[in-house]
Amino acid sequence: MPEISPAIHDPQGQEKQQQAAGVGILLQIMMLVLSFVLGHVLRRHKFYYLPEASASLLIGLIVGGLANVSNTETSIRTWFNFHDEFFFLFLLPPIIFQSGFSLQPKPFFSNFGAIVTFSVLGTFVASIVTGVLVYLGGVMFLMYRLPFVECLMFGSLISATDPVTVLSIFQELGSDVNLYALVFGESVLNDAMAISLYRTMSLVRSHSAGQNFFMVIIRFLETFVGSMSAGVGVGFTSALLFKYAGLDVDNLQNLECCLFVLFPYFSYMLAEGLSLSGIVSILFTGIVMKHYTYSNLSTNSQRFVSAFFHLISSLAETFVFIYMGFDIAMEKHSWSHVGFIFFSILFIVIARAANVFGCGYLVNLARPAHRKIPMTHQKALWYSGLRGAMAFALALQSVHELPDGHGQTIFTATTAIVVVTVLLIGGSTGTMLEALEVVGDSRDTSLGDGFEVVNNRYMTRFDDEGSPSESGFRTKLREFHKSAKSFSELDRNYLTPFFTSNNGDYDEDDDINNDQHHEERIPFTRRGNFNNRGLNF
Amino acid sequence: MPEISPAIHDPQGQEKQQQAAGVGILLQIMMLVLSFVLGHVLRRHKFYYLPEASASLLIGLIVGGLANVSNTETSIRTWFNFHDEFFFLFLLPPIIFQSGFSLQPKPFFSNFGAIVTFSVLGTFVASIVTGVLVYLGGVMFLMYRLPFVECLMFGSLISATDPVTVLSIFQELGSDVNLYALVFGESVLNDAMAISLYRTMSLVRSHSAGQNFFMVIIRFLETFVGSMSAGVGVGFTSALLFKYAGLDVDNLQNLECCLFVLFPYFSYMLAEGLSLSGIVSILFTGIVMKHYTYSNLSTNSQRFVSAFFHLISSLAETFVFIYMGFDIAMEKHSWSHVGFIFFSILFIVIARAANVFGCGYLVNLARPAHRKIPMTHQKALWYSGLRGAMAFALALQSVHELPDGHGQTIFTATTAIVVVTVLLIGGSTGTMLEALEVVGDSRDTSLGDGFEVVNNRYMTRFDDEGSPSESGFRTKLREFHKSAKSFSELDRNYLTPFFTSNNGDYDEDDDINNDQHHEERIPFTRRGNFNNRGLNF
Repeated sequence: MPEISPAIHDPQGQEKQQQAAGVGILLQIMMLVLSFVLGHVLRRHKFYYLPEASASLLIGLIVGGLANVSNTETSIRTWFNFHDEFFFLFLLPPIIFQSGFSLQPKPFFSNFGAIVTFSVLGTFVASIVTGVLVYLGGVMFLMYRLPFVECLMFGSLISATDPVTVLSIFQELGSDVNLYALVFGESVLNDAMAISLYRTMSLVRSHSAGQNFFMVIIRFLETFVGSMSAGVGVGFTSALLFKYAGLDVDNLQNLECCLFVLFPYFSYMLAEGLSLSGIVSILFTGIVMKHYTYSNLSTNSQRFVSAFFHLISSLAETFVFIYMGFDIAMEKHSWSHVGFIFFSILFIVIARAANVFGCGYLVNLARPAHRKIPMTHQKALWYSGLRGAMAFALALQSVHELPDGHGQTIFTATTAIVVVTVLLIGGSTGTMLEALEVVGDSRDTSLGDGFEVVNNRYMTRFDDEGSPSESGFRTKLREFHKSAKSFSELDRNYLTPFFTSNNGDYDEDDDINNDQHHEERIPFTRRGNFNNRGLNF
Repeated sequence: MPEISPAIHDPQGQEKQQQAAGVGILLQIMMLVLSFVLGHVLRRHKFYYLPEASASLLIGLIVGGLANVSNTETSIRTWFNFHDEFFFLFLLPPIIFQSGFSLQPKPFFSNFGAIVTFSVLGTFVASIVTGVLVYLGGVMFLMYRLPFVECLMFGSLISATDPVTVLSIFQELGSDVNLYALVFGESVLNDAMAISLYRTMSLVRSHSAGQNFFMVIIRFLETFVGSMSAGVGVGFTSALLFKYAGLDVDNLQNLECCLFVLFPYFSYMLAEGLSLSGIVSILFTGIVMKHYTYSNLSTNSQRFVSAFFHLISSLAETFVFIYMGFDIAMEKHSWSHVGFIFFSILFIVIARAANVFGCGYLVNLARPAHRKIPMTHQKALWYSGLRGAMAFALALQSVHELPDGHGQTIFTATTAIVVVTVLLIGGSTGTMLEALEVVGDSRDTSLGDGFEVVNNRYMTRFDDEGSPSESGFRTKLREFHKSAKSFSELDRNYLTPFFTSNNGDYDEDDDINNDQHHEERIPFTRRGNFNNRGLNF
């Protein structure tokens, strides 16, 4: 909250400050409008080389550059400094909530094992690999030398990928639901993982003596499970509230919506207040609220809240890129470390390969033949590892936390990586995905023949797969998958009747196999579509 | 924007701060939820002695008091200090925009002359009367003595009335449309007037030599007209944009809504950036956008934006009262000036009487017999002069601007006045209005016989009223009224066809007289009703 009006005894100064705020916010709104309009025009002309996020970043960079050249007043500039606190408290929550809220539960849960593997184990691997490589690079005098823990901090913050751009292109071009679920789920959970890892490493650094590796893992799991429980708990509470409060009558719509939109934020702040991870918490609140609470709302409110969260998150997303671009153009950077930047880019490419192909191998071990993740999907997943606002915000925090030169180096490198990946990968994703033949409207992609059987049928079939030739490891992996199936039954038989007003008529599952051939491709208007309950997928 | 994370080299400190923010915001959300639920329960039990605003203020006061007693950490407390900048930049704009947006143009414009008289001339009179009385009180040693200009500053800030509570009670009980339009219009425009007056006085104080009374008036008019033009200009621009951009197709709804919700804020910040009054500007943008831009939206977006602005402004309104209550409980007050508080309350009662009954007399001079404002309405208007957040925020600014004791005295007095009026007047408005027989569902109120003829018919009839016995002053006042009529024709013949897609089928006006007997009372769900275009009133 603003602390920009110190106790001055000069009304003109006060008025000037308010004027500066006005100009600053005015500029921001103009850039937002410009981004939306530009993004719309580019999309309408099917120009995929400059996605909306890249366009926003560019607009921010350009306006920031102009402001730099034209010596804009400091009082206006302060409105553009990227405040990590503002990002974490106000911009991030709606984006992450919308991720959970717009998540299609079926493909997500049917790929749950793979998603968790990629995002938890994979991000862990990527962070360690990046950290170790950067440390070795330092030892070998290839690049600026950082202490090992700081290398790991850099490794974890730079492993947070950004879903916005890639997913929007997937939606434009139409994509396989499973690939979409993988990319989506990975990038969402991965943020939560990266931020937890970063915080853990940062704690390790400050009490470097007392903690060992085991404690770090415990602490991490504690945070993750605690946050998830908090999020799910808040979600269930909201479901019960809306089930029994009887607010779904016409003239209470405003009250209903007010309460509904407060819950996600409540979940985020509850977790933060308990020193847990707000982003993990709000993500699960989003999933639970969409699955249970949402169906207890009146129809009008359902329409409204979907559009509301979509709107808020679009604004926040676009704003984040503009804000970042502007800040990059304005901040001091220590460009002396070009070597550091170059090698970091190389290392994150390697680390992401280790993550995706390593975890892909593991997942495929556990999956039956017709469900293997094809190499093209793995490549697409590897390629879609843009770095965005999360990495940027964490790097900005590291400037505050680490001794002078170190934080600055990490920040500059992260900045460069963000700009390069958003502009290059963002611009080329369309081409790349088309080259891999995983997108487009044609049906003759390189999918396995049983691949269309996405949801229950896959799960049902899965039970009879346990052949005696399996290794113990495989069996464990498969049991993990089975838990997803039993969750699905638990959901239908107990959770849904308990938390929602639909008693027993929850038949969307049964319809899926009938129309899945028509639904397999993600339609253009998926996210903007009002009437899409997001379940009959 | 937050500047609460200074460059600390301690990750734990950083995490602690984020935790404090989490706890602070969590508390705020819980109070919001509590207010909404409590307000709903009270309303359902038709308990009008504690309206929602008073309940919110009380909740804030209680929680603030508890936080004070329990020695809550400073890092959490900072989240509750009322920052006037936060109020003016983020909480106020949605509230004022919603006022303009939900305004029923017909009764507003048919009472336009009266509203402007009450809010511009009346507020001016009230400010001067309060200021002079406070100054005289000081001279006569009745109360703390302030310099004359500061008395006028106090007079203008304390003349800003708050519409929220009274209007919500009017809506609950059902009220005459003309009285509603008067109270509504007066309290909305009056805020703009009071803030402009306050700023002008504050400028006069800092360059006390160079300016005379005439210049003050000029400067005030400049601000007012400039802001109004800016607001109307932005509104018309948005109307043209939405008319020609072709965004009203289904899958562009999100883009349409994003752009729509950015315009009001753009208008506010444009005016602030130009050193004009954002609140006047956004009010007129609201009126214009509802009247023209709104009808260029797709039906879904129309529904959405109505609900969106209603939601945002409800949240902001409720939050303002909580925030104010909490801050009042936490701030230091110089309670030594009980005399000042007592006499100020007496003086503002007198000043508001001067405003309402004086202007009421003037307005009745100009109105034909069947349109006179009855005494009961004038009394209701006089009684509904709650002081709320606007007065509070300006008083907080005065603490920064004025030398120590003075600002503090003004602030304490304002705080006391806000609490007293919100709790006392808010709680008794229902009883009072019923005693005056201006509310309730019965139709036998003390209205003049021609009084139902609210809209066009009145206007049309009005032309033939100019009897030769009128004084020159009366004629002038009537001409002012006629301009409202010619505006109505200008609107129908030129503005509406030019700015909206309705070409010529703008027939809502013609239907009004047929069903006005059913529509005369404001229905319970007026503000929450989706399908209410707000024109067929």
